[in-house]
Amino acid sequence: MTSILVLNGPNLNLLGTRQPEIYGRTTLADIEEMCRAKADVIGVGVSCVQSNHEGALVDAIHAARGQHDGIILNAGAYTHTSIALMDAISSVGLPVIELHLSNVHAREAYRHRSYISAVALGVICGLGARGYVLAIEALAHHIEN
Amino acid sequence: MTSILVLNGPNLNLLGTRQPEIYGRTTLADIEEMCRAKADVIGVGVSCVQSNHEGALVDAIHAARGQHDGIILNAGAYTHTSIALMDAISSVGLPVIELHLSNVHAREAYRHRSYISAVALGVICGLGARGYVLAIEALAHHIEN
Amino acid sequence: MTSILVLNGPNLNLLGTRQPEIYGRTTLADIEEMCRAKADVIGVGVSCVQSNHEGALVDAIHAARGQHDGIILNAGAYTHTSIALMDAISSVGLPVIELHLSNVHAREAYRHRSYISAVALGVICGLGARGYVLAIEALAHHIEN
Amino acid sequence: MTSILVLNGPNLNLLGTRQPEIYGRTTLADIEEMCRAKADVIGVGVSCVQSNHEGALVDAIHAARGQHDGIILNAGAYTHTSIALMDAISSVGLPVIELHLSNVHAREAYRHRSYISAVALGVICGLGARGYVLAIEALAHHIEN
Amino acid sequence: MTSILVLNGPNLNLLGTRQPEIYGRTTLADIEEMCRAKADVIGVGVSCVQSNHEGALVDAIHAARGQHDGIILNAGAYTHTSIALMDAISSVGLPVIELHLSNVHAREAYRHRSYISAVALGVICGLGARGYVLAIEALAHHIEN
Amino acid sequence: MTSILVLNGPNLNLLGTRQPEIYGRTTLADIEEMCRAKADVIGVGVSCVQSNHEGALVDAIHAARGQHDGIILNAGAYTHTSIALMDAISSVGLPVIELHLSNVHAREAYRHRSYISAVALGVICGLGARGYVLAIEALAHHIEN
Amino acid sequence: MTSILVLNGPNLNLLGTRQPEIYGRTTLADIEEMCRAKADVIGVGVSCVQSNHEGALVDAIHAARGQHDGIILNAGAYTHTSIALMDAISSVGLPVIELHLSNVHAREAYRHRSYISAVALGVICGLGARGYVLAIEALAHHIEN
Amino acid sequence: MTSILVLNGPNLNLLGTRQPEIYGRTTLADIEEMCRAKADVIGVGVSCVQSNHEGALVDAIHAARGQHDGIILNAGAYTHTSIALMDAISSVGLPVIELHLSNVHAREAYRHRSYISAVALGVICGLGARGYVLAIEALAHHIEN
Amino acid sequence: MTSILVLNGPNLNLLGTRQPEIYGRTTLADIEEMCRAKADVIGVGVSCVQSNHEGALVDAIHAARGQHDGIILNAGAYTHTSIALMDAISSVGLPVIELHLSNVHAREAYRHRSYISAVALGVICGLGARGYVLAIEALAHHIEN
Amino acid sequence: MTSILVLNGPNLNLLGTRQPEIYGRTTLADIEEMCRAKADVIGVGVSCVQSNHEGALVDAIHAARGQHDGIILNAGAYTHTSIALMDAISSVGLPVIELHLSNVHAREAYRHRSYISAVALGVICGLGARGYVLAIEALAHHIEN
Amino acid sequence: MTSILVLNGPNLNLLGTRQPEIYGRTTLADIEEMCRAKADVIGVGVSCVQSNHEGALVDAIHAARGQHDGIILNAGAYTHTSIALMDAISSVGLPVIELHLSNVHAREAYRHRSYISAVALGVICGLGARGYVLAIEALAHHIEN
Amino acid sequence: MTSILVLNGPNLNLLGTRQPEIYGRTTLADIEEMCRAKADVIGVGVSCVQSNHEGALVDAIHAARGQHDGIILNAGAYTHTSIALMDAISSVGLPVIELHLSNVHAREAYRHRSYISAVALGVICGLGARGYVLAIEALAHHIEN
Repeated sequence: MTSILVLNGPNLNLLGTRQPEIYGRTTLADIEEMCRAKADVIGVGVSCVQSNHEGALVDAIHAARGQHDGIILNAGAYTHTSIALMDAISSVGLPVIELHLSNVHAREAYRHRSYISAVALGVICGLGARGYVLAIEALAHHIEN
Repeated sequence: MTSILVLNGPNLNLLGTRQPEIYGRTTLADIEEMCRAKADVIGVGVSCVQSNHEGALVDAIHAARGQHDGIILNAGAYTHTSIALMDAISSVGLPVIELHLSNVHAREAYRHRSYISAVALGVICGLGARGYVLAIEALAHHIEN
Repeated sequence: MTSILVLNGPNLNLLGTRQPEIYGRTTLADIEEMCRAKADVIGVGVSCVQSNHEGALVDAIHAARGQHDGIILNAGAYTHTSIALMDAISSVGLPVIELHLSNVHAREAYRHRSYISAVALGVICGLGARGYVLAIEALAHHIEN
Repeated sequence: MTSILVLNGPNLNLLGTRQPEIYGRTTLADIEEMCRAKADVIGVGVSCVQSNHEGALVDAIHAARGQHDGIILNAGAYTHTSIALMDAISSVGLPVIELHLSNVHAREAYRHRSYISAVALGVICGLGARGYVLAIEALAHHIEN
Repeated sequence: MTSILVLNGPNLNLLGTRQPEIYGRTTLADIEEMCRAKADVIGVGVSCVQSNHEGALVDAIHAARGQHDGIILNAGAYTHTSIALMDAISSVGLPVIELHLSNVHAREAYRHRSYISAVALGVICGLGARGYVLAIEALAHHIEN
Repeated sequence: MTSILVLNGPNLNLLGTRQPEIYGRTTLADIEEMCRAKADVIGVGVSCVQSNHEGALVDAIHAARGQHDGIILNAGAYTHTSIALMDAISSVGLPVIELHLSNVHAREAYRHRSYISAVALGVICGLGARGYVLAIEALAHHIEN
Repeated sequence: MTSILVLNGPNLNLLGTRQPEIYGRTTLADIEEMCRAKADVIGVGVSCVQSNHEGALVDAIHAARGQHDGIILNAGAYTHTSIALMDAISSVGLPVIELHLSNVHAREAYRHRSYISAVALGVICGLGARGYVLAIEALAHHIEN
Repeated sequence: MTSILVLNGPNLNLLGTRQPEIYGRTTLADIEEMCRAKADVIGVGVSCVQSNHEGALVDAIHAARGQHDGIILNAGAYTHTSIALMDAISSVGLPVIELHLSNVHAREAYRHRSYISAVALGVICGLGARGYVLAIEALAHHIEN
Repeated sequence: MTSILVLNGPNLNLLGTRQPEIYGRTTLADIEEMCRAKADVIGVGVSCVQSNHEGALVDAIHAARGQHDGIILNAGAYTHTSIALMDAISSVGLPVIELHLSNVHAREAYRHRSYISAVALGVICGLGARGYVLAIEALAHHIEN
Repeated sequence: MTSILVLNGPNLNLLGTRQPEIYGRTTLADIEEMCRAKADVIGVGVSCVQSNHEGALVDAIHAARGQHDGIILNAGAYTHTSIALMDAISSVGLPVIELHLSNVHAREAYRHRSYISAVALGVICGLGARGYVLAIEALAHHIEN
Repeated sequence: MTSILVLNGPNLNLLGTRQPEIYGRTTLADIEEMCRAKADVIGVGVSCVQSNHEGALVDAIHAARGQHDGIILNAGAYTHTSIALMDAISSVGLPVIELHLSNVHAREAYRHRSYISAVALGVICGLGARGYVLAIEALAHHIEN
Repeated sequence: MTSILVLNGPNLNLLGTRQPEIYGRTTLADIEEMCRAKADVIGVGVSCVQSNHEGALVDAIHAARGQHDGIILNAGAYTHTSIALMDAISSVGLPVIELHLSNVHAREAYRHRSYISAVALGVICGLGARGYVLAIEALAHHIEN
């Protein structure tokens, strides 16, 4: 069965737990649950990992080799600063969909550069938690076709 | 019924009609058919327009007011040069999902800047023709929720 | 009799027809009427053209040769991207006053560059619809002196 | 009665007193007289100040609080280098029309940046001495409406 | 028989019709006639198209597929701003010689960048109307060898 | 009782333990003791954490929620490269004083950019170990007023 | 007795006298009073000078030689544009603490560059009027140790 | 009789002598022969010089005064770095056609800047060895008309 | 006996374990073995550490004080982004040879900047696994002379 | 008799009065005396003015019209920031020799740009106090020939 | 027998002959002797050439074809400015090791760009005269394997 | 007796031999004669060398060691591009006055950067042939004091 790693980076663990009147109440746990639900529907497996450590994210990508068929990666702020993550993706050779909850292009200029885009299959951003569900669907389709 | 405009820009009319061994055989007509099929499934209406003229794309966005509830816009090369399209989107106030067939971030530097991203709801790129189908789903969901 | 072309570019056709509580209710038709009224008072002729097409604006500037004595040009977003408009102005040799409703210098950085300013007689910006009336007065004075 | 300060910056005191065959014979005194004449016609008061000192211009803007209802400011070369003048305008909260005799955008690149534009109501440039008269009219209209 | 499209962009329609004491009296019609004369001599066909509209130029390049064997393109100001034209050339796969009447490299900095050069066979600039004749010769030679 | 986290980043653990004739003999332990002494005097609590790991610093900021009322952050070299730390501060919403022992603005250009400043309450730099004591005082005052 | 010059630059004379609901009611006189109070407590002398003139600030720094032992300098907008002030500080050789009421790093990009930082002992910014009190304490400590 | 100097710069002496399966077998001698053949046909004289030394190329341009009526210059890599060659061309006042075998605009960014273009009559690039023949024709025409 | 730390950074653990037909079969273990073999020959000790965590690499450099006499550092992607590693090297004062398997200068522009070079003794790059052996030799020679 | 104004800008009044073991004991008065001595020898008049105020320097340049035949200007730090001084020189039309005691090109990058050079006759820098004497000689020669 | 060219560029002829207390007493002749000694040990041939002329270095690289199997190139200052040398290396197709005595990355910014690196096999810098010996070893190994 | 080398670079050999109505009739021989005359008056020796070859200029600077006490260097276009000349000056340790006939700062931007200034004693520019005479005087004075 196709297996997908949903990998979330720094600060995403705080989603939904603070100022819900502003940022909404969707937590990372909720998003991971949405991913699993979608995965069940289309018959793929999903594992979810989150870390605030760049090195731990690199380790997780390495560990995905042989265990998963593709990765959905929301690298948070490391998207804009980490060549190490970019190299990790190149090294393991798995298809990656880069994901951002907000539309990073409508934010500060230093959030417009992504080291990950250049080695990713594609990018989904600005579509909120639903972006993960779309990414599950797209990545599964890519892997299985 | 929710109605979505699928608006394609310059050179997209040539999709699939040349060097199929390289670019594949999916034509713009095929993509538009995929959009309509998805729209039928989820019960929304879809109209498809393509033009190589920046001004005609601006006109089409203006005309969408009152006729459509959202726009999926693949502005092609105008993505990177047209402030007029950006202003048109701001002016009509409809939600827009920016779409690119290829991963523009993995191409030349002048394709990394998008004037449209700043005023779009979100962006989907690099997922090929399937990106349109995901966009229909995401935009319909956004409009109806 | 001195004749002036008032030429408006992309998205200016939408003025005043949307969100009047924010942008006011002055439409492009109102502005053109104000121009004609001022023109009557000072005894000059005025023609008004609007287009969202860069090429059509170039055509209009070309056509002004022999028909008009000067141009008031609000090129909208093309102000910042169109060398073709700049060249058209140089080619026909008519005096041009560049006009902007808002103070473009107080907006995004990419709106600070104007290809038109370098070949214009002068610039009026940030004075709203009244800017057009001042421009009629200044251009007529320039032509007749 | 509405009162307007016409504030001129460095080197403008030399206007018209040198090389009249090139720059014309209009002096700063002539311009100030034109401003007063226009002011009389439309029933507003005008005071005129000129200084070559950045600090003196800041002082004059401060002193305008409570004495004037708006400022026409030709800051000359300080336009391009003085954040202090920009802050002074922000601090006193009076409407300011930025004025330049020549079309600064058609000159050297370092004259294209204006710190004043960002906090001004609007800008008039390239229309020569008549620009002041138009500015009196526009500013009075703005203040009284 | 080899067939060549001579495609001219914005403002080139005004060539020779204004200030002949400065720019000379060679019109676009004269240039097109020179092209046809050269074509006759070397036994190739030539079609000539001019438009001020970027979109129309893109359309013309698309239409050249199957009708012409190569294109001589003087894109005027669009040379420096149009990624859409660049993509059109890539899309149709015809050999293109980029042409400029004046030496664009000796003009303003923003005329030094050409989006077209990167996808053109070669460039001829600064050789005036004769450049077209040389281009006919070079392009015919390229196509037939 | 007001509680403050004193968080130190990479390489600060080596303070005072090497080349004392150059860098002095003040160790990080000494600085932390100075902080505690000041805290006692003004009646606030202080906790001290140091790590060379960017991710551990992010974790520590997250953990400060609910446990501390403010943070004094000397992020060392991460000041200039870590958007993740910036986002962590934004996420937890605690007031932060950015601190540097040396005057970073008098050092290499790449030390002039701080991602932290934009989300900090204020900055103290160049005042050596005493900067921490001043920061305790200022932060306690800010929290309690 | 240690003597400190508190030197304030352009527009700081307007502090607290306008829009108190926004900027608060703390005037420059209040700040100077807070400085004197702190100075009394720690047994140092304080003199306060303010000017909107760059040259006058240079003069004041020169005059401080032999009269004061250090300077607290809030150069306002001149911070970002005045190499003359920077040179004045280097010339007199007194220790200077650069002070800003607001966090200049969280404002416009042109406020991020400080010519003064490179020659200052240290910087305190974003801590409001209290920053002056902390600076008195830090500078006195520096001078006396 | 009109006389033309064909001047080739660094590394062009290696043309065609290495990896003919890749670069073709056309040597510099072949190109020079093509130039002479064309020159014979149109009745002009041609001299050919090649050097890898920037100074020798400057000397050759100086020596062309009084001996030749124009220069075809392929300065190779010195095109992008030599202001001395640019000044030499300005100094001798002969018409120069800049020539490149490949389309330099489609190569690395540092090959896009040409110091020579600004003082050349025109540029021919990307047309291979035939570019020289076209340049002979164009330069002879320019000199004799 | 002279002791050298061979410190490898992110993704180097994957060397030789994937796509051997492309990257070869030399693993990090092989390289470490080559280092030990060379060290034996020249009579120095070698310890090998690898981590994907920036903080762990900083820690390892700190720990090298008192344990090793010099460091061979292949920081991988952190070479280009880590000021923290640069500061760590400065802090411990050990001689460092920066090493890269590939010629980073022939790769993407963002791999041309190295924060480590500025504080390294020297750099060896592009010489593959043998570079490590040369570095052992050079570093031992440097330490012992 | 030819009359020359020697105009010195900010901080030059402190020359020679501080740290003579470093900067030497030559004061501004000494330099002015050297200028007068040279002027006597070659039979020209010299007046010396110094100010720390940019506006006062502008005023002095204005006042030189009709009183002096040329200016030797050491504008100190204003050299690099003052467009107002540049405009003043252009306005009065007197020949100006720009002078710097030190070699500004060997100092910080922001001292490499001079607004004055573009309108000066020439520049002498790095030759210390003797530069003034050479400038007197050169300027007198220029005026009288 | 493998043959290596050791090619040294501008100013390297002065090594060791001036200020030996600062730069040491190792002359270029010493370095060349060290190269020959190493070459003898490992059984390869070595030729040594030095020139201050860019063109002569290009000539030497050309002449190496057929005579040598690889080049060790210390191009001195031409490293940073010579595209001609870069092209020469590409043209002859021999493996090149770029060498610098000092760590150029720790020097001025304009010494960080190397045109040679992009076409070199590898780079050794900062290891002094011993770098040449290491390069002989590495290049011989590369050629013979 | 003090001996000075007057070293002139590319294109200066053409001075005065072409278009005398524009550039004047002063030849390089005239300038060298003026230098010798001045040298005689003040009792120093002068040697004059000119070359269009960068390498020859480097050689000449090297040869000056032991033969001359200082150099007046007009490096022409190499001023802006030659790091090799800069290094040569540093290597021989002789005092150098950089000289330009025209005011290079009033010309194209690429003539504003001088690699030579950073290692020169001082600069004289824009004072024409007389600049050489002043430089002889200043350099002799520097050497003998």
